[in-house]
Amino acid sequence: MLQRISILGTGLLGASAGLALRKAGFGGRIAGWNRTAEQAHLAHEMGAIDEVAADAVEAARASQVVLLAMPIFATLDFMEKLAPVLGPEQLVTDVGSTKRMISEAAARLYNTPDRAVFLPGHPMAGKERGGAALADADLFRGAVWLFTDDPGARRSAHGAALVAEWRKWVGLMGAKTLDLHAARHDDLVAWVSHLPQFTATALSALLEEEVGAAPELRDVGGRALREMTRLGASPFSMWRDIAHTNTEAVARALQALEQHLAHLRENLRTPALREEFEQANRFRRE
Amino acid sequence: MLQRISILGTGLLGASAGLALRKAGFGGRIAGWNRTAEQAHLAHEMGAIDEVAADAVEAARASQVVLLAMPIFATLDFMEKLAPVLGPEQLVTDVGSTKRMISEAAARLYNTPDRAVFLPGHPMAGKERGGAALADADLFRGAVWLFTDDPGARRSAHGAALVAEWRKWVGLMGAKTLDLHAARHDDLVAWVSHLPQFTATALSALLEEEVGAAPELRDVGGRALREMTRLGASPFSMWRDIAHTNTEAVARALQALEQHLAHLRENLRTPALREEFEQANRFRRE
Repeated sequence: MLQRISILGTGLLGASAGLALRKAGFGGRIAGWNRTAEQAHLAHEMGAIDEVAADAVEAARASQVVLLAMPIFATLDFMEKLAPVLGPEQLVTDVGSTKRMISEAAARLYNTPDRAVFLPGHPMAGKERGGAALADADLFRGAVWLFTDDPGARRSAHGAALVAEWRKWVGLMGAKTLDLHAARHDDLVAWVSHLPQFTATALSALLEEEVGAAPELRDVGGRALREMTRLGASPFSMWRDIAHTNTEAVARALQALEQHLAHLRENLRTPALREEFEQANRFRRE
Repeated sequence: MLQRISILGTGLLGASAGLALRKAGFGGRIAGWNRTAEQAHLAHEMGAIDEVAADAVEAARASQVVLLAMPIFATLDFMEKLAPVLGPEQLVTDVGSTKRMISEAAARLYNTPDRAVFLPGHPMAGKERGGAALADADLFRGAVWLFTDDPGARRSAHGAALVAEWRKWVGLMGAKTLDLHAARHDDLVAWVSHLPQFTATALSALLEEEVGAAPELRDVGGRALREMTRLGASPFSMWRDIAHTNTEAVARALQALEQHLAHLRENLRTPALREEFEQANRFRRE
């Protein structure tokens, strides 16, 4: 039975996980740590964690499950730091948005008989801005929580039980789980998550050049414009690591969109425009 | 005092205008006509119009204000048809999404001492699907209703009064009005309305190719993907006339977005990525 979890990184996802675990009835203790202590204290005040840990490694050592909820390169750093100090009775899992590098590090540093279990995870939930202040116990409700290269079946009975229990809590937080290989994961999210984000960023940046100086003209666009540029508010800090760790797949997706836009532009007055609309309609069919 | 309006085209915008006029307290009579009578009968059942007109021209002749609420080429056809049969005591206005061709037709066919007044209009409101069934008395609330080349000041006292009264009702329907020249209008909406639509269409069509066959993978994208592709459901029939009547401005906007996407793609690992995100953030600043 899970009695002690530590959440390293108490920003939007980490603090939301704490609140969601509580709402789902988790009765054990949750320690929280954050690089900037202010976010950890905020998460504590919100009831997302029971205590603010002074030292991340000590908090991890004292926990059965360690949730790494930080950007990808910081996650990779902590994976290196924690691997030698944790043991096979402990599970480390994460929420990183790309999984190939994290799965490679897990294979190299974890999941051996004397090391902790590592389960790469990725909840498809978020907001266009981060931070504990926006944390929400229902953030994961109805969302898909992806896992890649689950080591469960290849582990000791105890390791497998920890993985099963974490998966159960993810379900109780309201998420649907889906397992993929890491390479397939990174290809898929390049299309359904990274491409929409980079498209919104490019569209917003372009519109800032064209109509940014005239706020009354931005209002003209109404709901459609607001929706298509909402993700334009996403901070670089959240996306830098994604761009660095999934570069080839994101570049492929961006180039494919450039080609679709050019095709559409060259066919504004030909029957091919109808085909493009009908193909788009099929994507949105019920 | 306005006592009789006819709405020619009782789809989403026309029927919503009828409902909004009623909600705003319009006490006169509203006749409605639609190319397919079923939509007119539906609008009548919803209370958007008081009567279904059998003949559009006869309904227009009997009205002080005629609202053309149909696609752009159909609007241009009706402008030709109505100009010779209406008189200077009547106002014709429209809701077409591009205004250059309509303003040119208005200058050619209307706004002379013996002809009706024509006020080109464009409410920035809509849904991703059309039809009277989705009509909404609050569709225009908070939206911008654009007018181009208002002939009011150049008209007879009576024509000017009709224009002023229609503008008053547009305000009472909850919209904010803004006046632009037609050429400026078409350039502006290419950026803030047509570009977001064609981007969503291209993105949805591309994703249909990549993940359309696996609906469970579409779910992975969550809210961000749903939002960025919602307009992918827009029917070709609504956008064909826009693509035909604002081709150059839309093509310019699409090409500029292609260039931004390519720039972003070539800089996924350089500091220029930060600049693109920061410029996008500025567009979304409060």
